[in-house]
Amino acid sequence: MPTFHIEMFEGRSVEQKRELAAALTETTCKVLGVDASSVDIIFHDVKPENWATAGKLWSDPR
Amino acid sequence: MPTFHIEMFEGRSVEQKRELAAALTETTCKVLGVDASSVDIIFHDVKPENWATAGKLWSDPR
Amino acid sequence: MPTFHIEMFEGRSVEQKRELAAALTETTCKVLGVDASSVDIIFHDVKPENWATAGKLWSDPR
Amino acid sequence: MPTFHIEMFEGRSVEQKRELAAALTETTCKVLGVDASSVDIIFHDVKPENWATAGKLWSDPR
Amino acid sequence: MPTFHIEMFEGRSVEQKRELAAALTETTCKVLGVDASSVDIIFHDVKPENWATAGKLWSDPR
Amino acid sequence: MPTFHIEMFEGRSVEQKRELAAALTETTCKVLGVDASSVDIIFHDVKPENWATAGKLWSDPR
Repeated sequence: MPTFHIEMFEGRSVEQKRELAAALTETTCKVLGVDASSVDIIFHDVKPENWATAGKLWSDPR
Repeated sequence: MPTFHIEMFEGRSVEQKRELAAALTETTCKVLGVDASSVDIIFHDVKPENWATAGKLWSDPR
Repeated sequence: MPTFHIEMFEGRSVEQKRELAAALTETTCKVLGVDASSVDIIFHDVKPENWATAGKLWSDPR
Repeated sequence: MPTFHIEMFEGRSVEQKRELAAALTETTCKVLGVDASSVDIIFHDVKPENWATAGKLWSDPR
Repeated sequence: MPTFHIEMFEGRSVEQKRELAAALTETTCKVLGVDASSVDIIFHDVKPENWATAGKLWSDPR
Repeated sequence: MPTFHIEMFEGRSVEQKRELAAALTETTCKVLGVDASSVDIIFHDVKPENWATAGKLWSDPR
């Protein structure tokens, strides 16, 4: 039943998500010994103005 | 204080969310014995390209 | 594929979780027209010292 | 490594997020004694139709 | 209605959580112009073996 | 900045988490072209009594 929530900056292509989902699922099945059908992955696209590190938004110049 | 986060595919109508929020809250109050005012429900609309099961995006043909 | 994350104070019995999971799933299926097998519910037990409202921990006298 | 997820109604300006991120990070560093670079803050803008309290959507008249 | 989820390493004292919750709430009210009663903060204590950065668990020597 | 939250049943060993974190990070860097230091992974160990599918707790006989 592993369920992934992955927050990352918006802008990744569907092709990247497709490839990432397939690879992460395969890795998880191998390491945990679970069936692929039990793995769910949910991507959250985050705008740079909605993510701050060290108190500074990523939409601002660093 | 129960706080719900519900991830589901985008496309549900406001009417469905309204009905679901009312029914889930009523059920929660009955089972847990809490007051309705303490129940928060947050819906997250997820695009099919952002959800994968068994390593495959739901925007792809299955 | 609705996936619920429910944060609530620790201390609820397994019996309450069992009843709540069954009832919430039934409600969700009815309103959204999805199959029960597509509904996942994850409970998160939260200690009162880990939840604050209005700036005050729930483990503190109110 | 404190990582914040903050759900709030959509409509806050980038300026408010900038100010909030800076102030929350400063506070966290002071209280926990961590370095600013270890603090991540992610904002989630929520539509009123996606948030219910007491079983009622915030997009509905109260 | 801002709702915070804060993931941080386990081991912080109740006193630190109390101080942090109070200060974060005050800051949020000031910047967003909301009432303190609308601010919820939930802390999640994370074990070092449950957090990895750069592919390495924090329970492992760096 | 990809940040993973992975919910899975409790009981996985530290060795499995170590291997999973390393492999998931490597995969993510390869597909997204990000640096390993930007990838955070947080595991959430979930008790079977806290996870329900199809309205039934996983601690109950299926």
